[in-house]
Amino acid sequence: MVNAGVVILEEEIIKEVINMKKKLNLEPMFSPKSITIIGASAGVGKISARPLFLLRKLGYQGTIYPVNAKYTEIEGYPCIQEIEELPKDIDLAIISIRASEVLPTLERLAKRSVKSAVVFSSGFSEAGESGEELQQRLNKFVEETGIPVCGPNSLGFFNLKESVIASFLQLEPSRMDPIAFITQSGAFGTLSYKMLNDMGTGYQYFVSSGNEATVDFFDYVQYFAKQEDIKVIGGYIEGARDLEKMNEAIRLCQHQDKPLILMKVGKSEKGAEAAISHTASLTGDASIYSGFFKQKNVIQVDDEEELIDTVNLFNKAKTSSQRGGVALVTISGGAGIVMADKCEQYGIELAELMPETTSKLKELLPAFASVKNPIDVTAQIMQDLEKLFESIRVTLEDDGVEALVVYNQLGDFLAPKIIPGLSEIAQQTNKTFVVCWAGASEQTKDALFAGGVCWLPTPSRSIRALKNLLHYKRRKGLLPKQDFTVTERLTNRIVMEAFEGITNEYTSKQHLKNYGISVPAGSIVKNVESAVKVAEEIGYPIVLKVLSRQIVHKSDAGVVKVNLKSEDEVRNSFEEILINAGKYNPQVQIEGVVVEKMMKEGLEMMIGSIQDPLFGPCILLGSGGVFVEVLNDTVIRPAPLTMEDAWEMIRSLKGYAVLKGIRGQGPYDIQALAETLVKVSEFCLDQQDWLQELDINPVLVQAAKKGVTALDCLLVGKRTAKHLSYL
Amino acid sequence: MVNAGVVILEEEIIKEVINMKKKLNLEPMFSPKSITIIGASAGVGKISARPLFLLRKLGYQGTIYPVNAKYTEIEGYPCIQEIEELPKDIDLAIISIRASEVLPTLERLAKRSVKSAVVFSSGFSEAGESGEELQQRLNKFVEETGIPVCGPNSLGFFNLKESVIASFLQLEPSRMDPIAFITQSGAFGTLSYKMLNDMGTGYQYFVSSGNEATVDFFDYVQYFAKQEDIKVIGGYIEGARDLEKMNEAIRLCQHQDKPLILMKVGKSEKGAEAAISHTASLTGDASIYSGFFKQKNVIQVDDEEELIDTVNLFNKAKTSSQRGGVALVTISGGAGIVMADKCEQYGIELAELMPETTSKLKELLPAFASVKNPIDVTAQIMQDLEKLFESIRVTLEDDGVEALVVYNQLGDFLAPKIIPGLSEIAQQTNKTFVVCWAGASEQTKDALFAGGVCWLPTPSRSIRALKNLLHYKRRKGLLPKQDFTVTERLTNRIVMEAFEGITNEYTSKQHLKNYGISVPAGSIVKNVESAVKVAEEIGYPIVLKVLSRQIVHKSDAGVVKVNLKSEDEVRNSFEEILINAGKYNPQVQIEGVVVEKMMKEGLEMMIGSIQDPLFGPCILLGSGGVFVEVLNDTVIRPAPLTMEDAWEMIRSLKGYAVLKGIRGQGPYDIQALAETLVKVSEFCLDQQDWLQELDINPVLVQAAKKGVTALDCLLVGKRTAKHLSYL
Repeated sequence: MVNAGVVILEEEIIKEVINMKKKLNLEPMFSPKSITIIGASAGVGKISARPLFLLRKLGYQGTIYPVNAKYTEIEGYPCIQEIEELPKDIDLAIISIRASEVLPTLERLAKRSVKSAVVFSSGFSEAGESGEELQQRLNKFVEETGIPVCGPNSLGFFNLKESVIASFLQLEPSRMDPIAFITQSGAFGTLSYKMLNDMGTGYQYFVSSGNEATVDFFDYVQYFAKQEDIKVIGGYIEGARDLEKMNEAIRLCQHQDKPLILMKVGKSEKGAEAAISHTASLTGDASIYSGFFKQKNVIQVDDEEELIDTVNLFNKAKTSSQRGGVALVTISGGAGIVMADKCEQYGIELAELMPETTSKLKELLPAFASVKNPIDVTAQIMQDLEKLFESIRVTLEDDGVEALVVYNQLGDFLAPKIIPGLSEIAQQTNKTFVVCWAGASEQTKDALFAGGVCWLPTPSRSIRALKNLLHYKRRKGLLPKQDFTVTERLTNRIVMEAFEGITNEYTSKQHLKNYGISVPAGSIVKNVESAVKVAEEIGYPIVLKVLSRQIVHKSDAGVVKVNLKSEDEVRNSFEEILINAGKYNPQVQIEGVVVEKMMKEGLEMMIGSIQDPLFGPCILLGSGGVFVEVLNDTVIRPAPLTMEDAWEMIRSLKGYAVLKGIRGQGPYDIQALAETLVKVSEFCLDQQDWLQELDINPVLVQAAKKGVTALDCLLVGKRTAKHLSYL
Repeated sequence: MVNAGVVILEEEIIKEVINMKKKLNLEPMFSPKSITIIGASAGVGKISARPLFLLRKLGYQGTIYPVNAKYTEIEGYPCIQEIEELPKDIDLAIISIRASEVLPTLERLAKRSVKSAVVFSSGFSEAGESGEELQQRLNKFVEETGIPVCGPNSLGFFNLKESVIASFLQLEPSRMDPIAFITQSGAFGTLSYKMLNDMGTGYQYFVSSGNEATVDFFDYVQYFAKQEDIKVIGGYIEGARDLEKMNEAIRLCQHQDKPLILMKVGKSEKGAEAAISHTASLTGDASIYSGFFKQKNVIQVDDEEELIDTVNLFNKAKTSSQRGGVALVTISGGAGIVMADKCEQYGIELAELMPETTSKLKELLPAFASVKNPIDVTAQIMQDLEKLFESIRVTLEDDGVEALVVYNQLGDFLAPKIIPGLSEIAQQTNKTFVVCWAGASEQTKDALFAGGVCWLPTPSRSIRALKNLLHYKRRKGLLPKQDFTVTERLTNRIVMEAFEGITNEYTSKQHLKNYGISVPAGSIVKNVESAVKVAEEIGYPIVLKVLSRQIVHKSDAGVVKVNLKSEDEVRNSFEEILINAGKYNPQVQIEGVVVEKMMKEGLEMMIGSIQDPLFGPCILLGSGGVFVEVLNDTVIRPAPLTMEDAWEMIRSLKGYAVLKGIRGQGPYDIQALAETLVKVSEFCLDQQDWLQELDINPVLVQAAKKGVTALDCLLVGKRTAKHLSYL
């Protein structure tokens, strides 16, 4: 629908396409055949010594060139005096020198055609104004030369498979699983690695992204998503910098079926404050991130332990196509109750066992065991392990079982007898199989892992991780077949003339109407005769409203009259609201009076939009009345919204129950509400160059199949925008 | 207020007082000077061998008498052949024999005046019908002899301070802190002990209460609360058996200022099912327990790790009278953000630092550190530890700081330098001081504990535990000065005549009125003339309702007419509702027509009551309308309610915001609502012998200072009761 006020901005499309960032090649960084260490020194613990120490420790097979004018030899390696003496085409430079020296050094390295670099040095954007300037110059260097730089202010990275380590990590990485981890906090990354190690698992790839000079968090995600030997990608993120990259990276993860498990921090205002002063990240609004992650099936975890448990589970356990409930097989009734409680808390169903399963279990187990799920096989079963294994097998074969958790504790002396049986089961089943062996020794854990068994540490943590896997599977089925790509959106882009103020209600609604969103029948009139005429045409009852830029809160000013049922009422009210307008503001400039069909049957809700600095237009849906005011019952997701997104948003509201109908009211037209959300999303995307905020409040959701009508609408241009109170 | 239908049941009071359970003396159990082991055997691992092995290992100083007809000597102890050969007055008997042998053995032991016993044997109430009978006989034995028995089906107990262990625990307890732990699941108890040990702490007292033959969970709580050397009491509980004991135990904990930290399981239906089949506990409704624990300032934790972390924190950290916010001092910006996020999530305030503190920190710390809370001292501070200590001291001295968490990670090599400084700070401050040293080695943890420092393992877990301590302190201030004891309640007990059916609305409301609860002015009439007369007396508008036992849903039957404004309307409506009643049910028996003052200005809510098998009358408060229907916005607490309880209940509702006033509606009379809750609580307690359910729905909360009126009321006698749909 193209009308007078609309032009297609083709030039802008072209400009955007040209601006698409040059792809940086991270291959030489993570798989270097040669490494130079600038400012290298001898020893074990110092930042400048650590990379060489770790490379040697890990047995890196490529060539290493330490550079330091002070030495002729470091740890047996001939030391190069000047960068200019380095051979050309070295894959990776490790830079551990003063911030002010970093750029000149990189430029000299560029002349030797170095292919990538990692900068440990701090003193860039995290260090205030002067650092910010250095950072900008570094970013520019990367953009112009196409040489990817990890950092600055980075702990570095490793790729254990190729014994590459370019880091001053205080740990010596050893355990390696097909897991990649990216962290915006070096310290947090180290901690997560330590915690995961204590659980018997390790990262293959690890990268501390530091201040992200052009190469950002999601560049790494993209790179790791493409690595065939990587199964799971995890990360700690304070904020993303580039929406397009993030979208592309997540799309790639979906395409490659690589779960992306993120701990997003900076939810709180105080937290966000800290994030800015810490790595100068643009920490977006937590609820937008959460909405976005749900939309994209990114697994968001809540704390350190949920992070490593979930990474562990996705790494070790199978995710079959089977659907059903969770079976719990425990040697402790207490643990069974704890796990059942947690299943309920997380909305995971316990499997209802088939009668055949129950009777088989009855045969296998002693009389005082519980053959109902949670199945308490009792500690006595340890005296006849075949019965334990058979009970697990029988339960796994039940068609209603999607995942099974076995609980055991302590008793490491039994490990050599139990673990082979559990390993065999883990290998044979195609269902998700978890062993929660609480208080297991290092040796027991190692043996479980070696046997391909997914181990988790406590009843509660097992179920918390499992819920992430099960929810991920379910959401995967819901993802739209094809994503709404940026290019597609651009080709049908329609933009209204930029408008920098606040549009009046009538004009705003006309814009919505152009996008196929219903508004009440009506017209804008200049005198009472026209008002009566319009009223007769559209039919009583009607609403009258004075339009004026000086009157923002119309009801307070007494310039709205509703439910007018006759010509007389229209005439009287017309006069009255004009008088009220004059009383409210003697200098009032009246743009006209709106005569509109009175709509009353339906549920009032609200739809809004804001422009987020990262996500661009985000669409908010809120329940009406007390729900939004008392409970903040809103949901927000970045545009574009698909119909699936819109439905998910609606379903996530507490007010969804009201939409579906309660107390003889409803059901309401949820399908039309979803369609309206998608239309608003399209509108906001198209108008994003000038539109800062949108507020359709109330939007009336009518009875099923009766549609949705925007009763009031406010559009705010960018220059005028202040944050609306609902955010 | 005593009226015709009411009698004071003095006999019943007396009966109840007499029935108060005999106090059992647990002293010989936990501090025995002599122990006999019935069915003892030699070795390390077997259940029958384990107690002797552990007693020797721990170096028990009392006398041990193994009893087993098969041996003459066990592990160097002369073995006694028959119980009858035992000396008299042995303090404790450990019984590890077949279930069927337990009672005869106990009887023989009783003849030798044994003072207490622990029974490991299973095959009692957890094992179905035959076991249940054995259990009953065992309970009776305890009641009649006054010999306390721990178990049956118990893992046993220990008291490390006196090297007493009467357990077949597979661990060898060693670490000991002033902590007592009671568990209804032996396996869970063992796990918690292992987890706590891994954190460098241990229980002094541990008891697995098993099937609780008369001596139950709260008997142990009472005993431990009285031990001067015990600081913290923790537990795993599936259900309580005796409200009076529980109340008394909790009161004692409060009185002794001993925090009681419980993990209550069996929230889910499935979980509860498992609980019953596991230790045959009476698992009550989870929400009632939660309400009760809040009321009593019992700390309820959500999972295994929160349990041990919270126990650890209460054990090691100080709880001063200082009020304020939490200060975070970290070497990692990331950890600071994570902790700040968690503070927000749990409703803990971050301390706003005083300008003096900030300037002192600025002097101490490098330019790139963050001197705002969370304070990022940066990892560099490790090179000048005095500055770290001084930063902590300066921050602790800030008047706005109530608690301080220092975050550090790894770097155990620095422990010898850091820990003395942290210990000194911990000893000097009177504020809550926590060191979260993530990835600390065993040695580091031990050194921290030895230095009196409270250590916690991760940023998220530190804040989760800390919130329990801070909330505990705040609630302590809110506890009523004097508890409403059972005896006090009984002395003014007033009971209506038992009523086994469903009372009609009018009668129900008269009962409420007798307890000082407002109901609309009105009367019950038999004919239209009386109706008009009453209407004129009370003033229009009025409501008419037909009273009949055959008509439960009056509105549906068309026998209610509201907002009648004149004599004519009353006459017409009177006729109409009688006709409708006849149409609804041709055999209808009409008890009369209620003429009532029409009340409409206010907020509709609901108050209800059910009889819980354990807690007795519990009072439910629910928001009105969509809040209760869509959100289940209700809160339930056992009677008696104090005014503080009532206020807390009201404040805990989402609908509290509505009561306080929104959108120009309200505020409403919250004080009167609280008073009404207390009156309902008194009513339900007084009538508990016959009253099963009560439903005041709606109750109209009028504008501030205008009161609260019960618009409708239903009372259900015990024999008739079915569960109301709102539970």
